[in-house]
Formats: sequence, structure tokens, C-alpha cells
Amino acid sequence: DYSKLDKLIIGVCGGDGIGPYICNDARKVLEFLLADKIAAGKVEVRNIDGLTIERRVEVMKAIPDDTMEELKKCHVILKGPTTTPKKGDPWPNIESANVAMRKELDLFANIRPVSVPELGINWRFFRENTEGSYAVGSNGINVTDDLAIDYCVATTQGTERILRAGFDYAKKSGANYVSVITKANIIKTTDGKFLNIAEKVAKDYPEVRWDDWFIDITTAKLLDPARRSAFRVFVLPNLYGDIITDEAAQIQGGVGTAGSANIGKRYAMFEAIHGSAPRMVDEGRAKYADPCSMIKAVAMMLEHIGEVEKARKLDMALDVCVQFEKRLVMTGRDTGATGEEFAKYVIETVQRPD
Amino acid sequence: DYSKLDKLIIGVCGGDGIGPYICNDARKVLEFLLADKIAAGKVEVRNIDGLTIERRVEVMKAIPDDTMEELKKCHVILKGPTTTPKKGDPWPNIESANVAMRKELDLFANIRPVSVPELGINWRFFRENTEGSYAVGSNGINVTDDLAIDYCVATTQGTERILRAGFDYAKKSGANYVSVITKANIIKTTDGKFLNIAEKVAKDYPEVRWDDWFIDITTAKLLDPARRSAFRVFVLPNLYGDIITDEAAQIQGGVGTAGSANIGKRYAMFEAIHGSAPRMVDEGRAKYADPCSMIKAVAMMLEHIGEVEKARKLDMALDVCVQFEKRLVMTGRDTGATGEEFAKYVIETVQRPD
Ligand SMILES: CC(C)[C@H](C(=O)O)[C@@H](O)C(=O)O
Ligand SMILES: CC(C)[C@H](C(=O)O)[C@@H](O)C(=O)O
Repeated sequence: DYSKLDKLIIGVCGGDGIGPYICNDARKVLEFLLADKIAAGKVEVRNIDGLTIERRVEVMKAIPDDTMEELKKCHVILKGPTTTPKKGDPWPNIESANVAMRKELDLFANIRPVSVPELGINWRFFRENTEGSYAVGSNGINVTDDLAIDYCVATTQGTERILRAGFDYAKKSGANYVSVITKANIIKTTDGKFLNIAEKVAKDYPEVRWDDWFIDITTAKLLDPARRSAFRVFVLPNLYGDIITDEAAQIQGGVGTAGSANIGKRYAMFEAIHGSAPRMVDEGRAKYADPCSMIKAVAMMLEHIGEVEKARKLDMALDVCVQFEKRLVMTGRDTGATGEEFAKYVIETVQRPD
Repeated sequence: DYSKLDKLIIGVCGGDGIGPYICNDARKVLEFLLADKIAAGKVEVRNIDGLTIERRVEVMKAIPDDTMEELKKCHVILKGPTTTPKKGDPWPNIESANVAMRKELDLFANIRPVSVPELGINWRFFRENTEGSYAVGSNGINVTDDLAIDYCVATTQGTERILRAGFDYAKKSGANYVSVITKANIIKTTDGKFLNIAEKVAKDYPEVRWDDWFIDITTAKLLDPARRSAFRVFVLPNLYGDIITDEAAQIQGGVGTAGSANIGKRYAMFEAIHGSAPRMVDEGRAKYADPCSMIKAVAMMLEHIGEVEKARKLDMALDVCVQFEKRLVMTGRDTGATGEEFAKYVIETVQRPD
């Protein structure tokens, strides 16, 4: 319960590429909305450096130790996208900073809401965030030059807590319906365990209806007008959650429109679901990067720290601004607005009466 | 080269649920189109029993030995959907018959075309079909009651042959563009290997442009009007291929509209991409099951055995019939056609001049 804290500390780390730009835009919105509390010394918004790819390469670690120390002094974190090296990049092979933060701060629930009112879509994805196919990172093995092996891991505790998070939300929100997504017909041991535990957890929520689907057909059903609006709450293993939330975000208007909450018992981190778009920086277009999903992350943070009313207002304002931008683009009057201008426009809109 | 055979043997196995119904419908179309060759003794269409879930449970094997023997006497196979037991089914834990057939007949390339002319979509997916996350089946391990592990496997040979299949097709078809899909930023060892080998293979095809995408953002890009029509050929590990082809099929009109070719050096098997829909059988609606994707599989088989002209005609006829049905449904005059009636209608349409 954050209201009991003397002072709530919010860390902001910009990340790589367009990250620092859109984080800065989003931070302005955050500071505007919490201005009273900041002035009263009840909230501090703090910059956390050192999550850049250059710094990480220097110390050859996903998150430098001193940065991790700073992060752990915060209660909640707003994080810009970070670059994860892959084959062919100029960087050596370092683990994803995203994934490292999720694991080290034990942020086990990755929550991603997607809503498209005009299509009757109101989904909330509960993605398991610390294990599954993300467990081993670089620790798969090349048995020989000709045989590579990776692992997928599911623990009872890790599986149960994400399922409870989904069922809890379904119950409290009144959605009362959970779809558990696996590929248990093939990935029998880990996904089978996921489904097993779902069955057990579901018994504690007799008022919540639930069913299970395979991940493949689910990607089709999200597009099926006869079925998609029936879905409400999804609970899924890490990798399926990663894959399907990008599809869902695109239905909502693009990966640039979706925010992501990473919640643990002790810490919480909020971020965009898209990447760091280094190409925009290279081309000198970073200041035009769309901060929408970072501002969405701010709204999720506000809700999480108990500022429910402010979160609602911000969500509404964001919606208005996105619709307005869309209309301008559709009518050929491309705004060419910078992220800073967009953030300003959101702040103006928040101030208007409902 | 099938034209050198004395007699081409085509095996038809119905599978479970609606499988035998739609296989029978599709078989009629096949036999109509190959009537001359069948009469001349150049082609034999042969029924293969024993791929039912009841029989598989009896012998506790994904494919009974005698059935496998019969299958191996065929050159090409038309296969109806089969039921794969999962947790909660009345069946014990048997491997998927689908996956077993792909592995035992070494059908390494799962090829799935998706086309939506009015959206400019002309995609062909080359899904690796014998390893990846499908390699171990039930052989994952429960280390303790609280820890389950599955494996993902990539071999050099297995990876290289699917990539070559994709690049070969891109070159020969004139598509000249390949997108390799992985999650190599996270699944570093196996997907990293996939990407490594892609780089190597690509060097042998200097005329083919290629790029690589992560599976998550790819599910978004398939829906992006500004990007999707640029894609042509995809090459992907087994699980990503499974997941994304259902999404792609839905864009085309539903998983019921897509066929799937499973090609190896020695055998080839053609199937629908959807499941056995046991519910339709329970509700007595099996004869209304839509045989469209099985007939699509027939068209792919015809192309594969060198009957290119007949394949083209069938594809066109299928298109006309699907459009006609869609129009009837849209105007509220639901045909309520049975699969048998639909097959008859396709046969009539094939006979019309172009
Ligand atoms: C950037 C990447 C490591 C990350 C993930 O795979 O989880 C991203 O795709 C996401 O969904 O947050
Ligand atoms: C039925 C199932 C085993 C199969 C798969 O997972 O490959 C199916 O989904 C497919 O895509 O052909």
C-alpha cells in the first residue's frame, strides 16, 4: 500500500534509442499530474542513468551493479525501451536489460490491457514474466557444432502466482472470465503443468468462468469478429504473452499504443511494449518518436500507486489526443508533431473538464 | 520426379472427428481430377485406416505400426485432422499423430500459402517441421514436483534444409525476398543458430533479398496495411510457424481456408491446418463440416505431383465457390450446404471453361 509511505520514489530510466526522448515526454505528463504531491514532498521523481547499451557493454552486464542499486531504492520505475543485442549487431552478446530487470526485481506479472471500444474489445493479458522460454537467456547449450538446445522452464510457484493474478483480476473487475493459453498438446511438460495448475487455481474462483485455448488458434480468434469480443482476461506463459500482445496491440492501433505493467510483490516497472527504434535516432527523427505508449505506461503507473482518478483522466485524454492525431493524418494534414508537442497537448487535454 | 513412376500411390487417411467426412469430400474432388490416370492404372487412391484416436489408444502409439507400414507404401498422403490428447481429455497421453508422421516420414518442410488478392497479400510460410520446440514431445522432465523443463532443439542440418527450401522457392518463383523469423534476442542458442545459418545460406542466393524479424512484432506487421503486402516468403522455426500461420489463415478468411503441405525427400503429406472439431461430431453436424481446407490440400498435392494445370484450375474453382458461399451467407441466405454438396459444386465449377 503506497499511501502509507513517507515518500514514494519513482525512478525514470530512459533506456536506448528513442527511449530517453519518449521517457522525457512521459515524465512531463507524470510530473504535471503529481505536481501537488511532488511539491508536498510526498513523491520524488528521480532520474536513473546507466541503462544505456554503451554502459552495459562497458561493464558487460545486462544491468550495471550501480544502476541496479539505484533501481532498488525506488518503489516504482518508468523505463524506456532498451536495445537487446542479437547476432549481427555491433554489440557483444549481453542479456536483455528488460528481461534482467523483470527477473532481478521479481516482476512476475506482465499486464497488458488492450481495448478497442468500437469493436467491443476489452482484453487484459497476464503474461508470466520471469520463467518459461525466457528463463535461460544465454545459458542454452551448443552440444556440438551441429546441435543447439534451449530450455523452457515452469515452476509450480511461478505458474501459480501469475494464474492467481489473472483470476483475482477477473473476479475483482467483474470480468469473471479467464482464458488460459498454452500449447499443452505439444509442449507437454511445462505447458501441461501450466494447464494443470490452472485447473487447480480455478477451483478457488468458482464465480469465474474459464476455458483453455491453444496459442495458435488464439492468434486467429483475436481477429474473428464472431469470437474476439467474448475474450476478457488471458493468462499465458512468457513467450506466448510476448507474441500475442504485439498482435493485440496492432488491433488497437499499433505497438506504439500499448503500455505494459511489470508487477512484483516489492517493485513495479512500467514501460512501452515496443523497441528502441535506433533507426529513428540514426535518421535524426528521434524527437518525432511517438510517446503514446510511454504515456500509457504512466497511466498504468498512476493506477497502480492508487491515483485511480488521475489514471482515468489521463487515459481519457490520451484517447482524445490519439483520435485527434489519427484524424489529422487521415485527412492528409499530417501533424508532424514532436513527442514534446504531443505530451503538451495531452497535458492541456487532461486539464479540460470531462 | 513422380512422372517416372509406374504407378503413383496416394494414401488417404481420414483421421478423427470431422476428418473422415471432409477427407471423403476432398477425395471425390481428387478422384474426379485424376480420373483419366486412375482409369489408366497410373494412379491409385488407397484408403489407410487406423489413424483414429481409438486405435491409437488401443496400441498406445501415435501411429500404429501396421498403419505406418501402409503409409510408407504410398508416395503421397492426404490426411484428415487427428485428435491430440491433452490434459483433461478422456484419452491417455499419446503423442500427436500429426507430429509423429512429420517426424517418422521426415517431412521437414511445412509449406503454407496464404493469399488475399484484394489486400495485396501473397505469402508463403516455410515452417521447420521436425525439430524446435516440437522435438521432445512427452520427453520433457519433471525435475521435481515443482520444476518442469521442456527442450527446444535446433540442428545444423535441420535448420539449413528448411532455409534452403525457402530461399529456393523465393528464387524460382521470382519472389526474391525472404523474411527469417526468430526470437534470437531471447532464445539465443537455438534461434541464434537459426539466424546464423540463415546468414550463411543467404550468401548462396545473392539475387534474393532477405531480412530478419522477431516473431512478436511479425504478428503485428501481418496486420499492418503499410507493411504486410511487402512480405512474400517466411522461413521460421516450428513453433512460430505453427502460431503465425493460424493468424495468417484468419486474415485469409479463417483456418478453414488454408491447406498445408508437409514435404520431405521421400514422402509428402497434405492436410488442413485446422483440428478435428469433435464437438461438431457430438452435435451431429459433421456432415456440414467445411471441406475447403482439405480441398485446398488436394490442390497443393496436385501441384506437387506435377499436375500444375489441374492444381491451378482447382484453386480457381475453390475461390469461386468460397466467394459464392460467402455472398450467400452475407445476404442472409445461409446455404446450409453439406460438405458433400460443396465438393460437388467445386467439381461442377472445375468443369466450366476458365
Ligand atoms: C524487447 C524484448 C526483450 C521484450 C520481450 O521479449 O519481452 C519485448 O518484446 C516485450 O514484449 O516487452
Ligand atoms: C494439431 C497440432 C499438433 C498441429 C501443430 O501444432 O503443428 C496443428 O496446429 C498444425 O498447425 O498443423
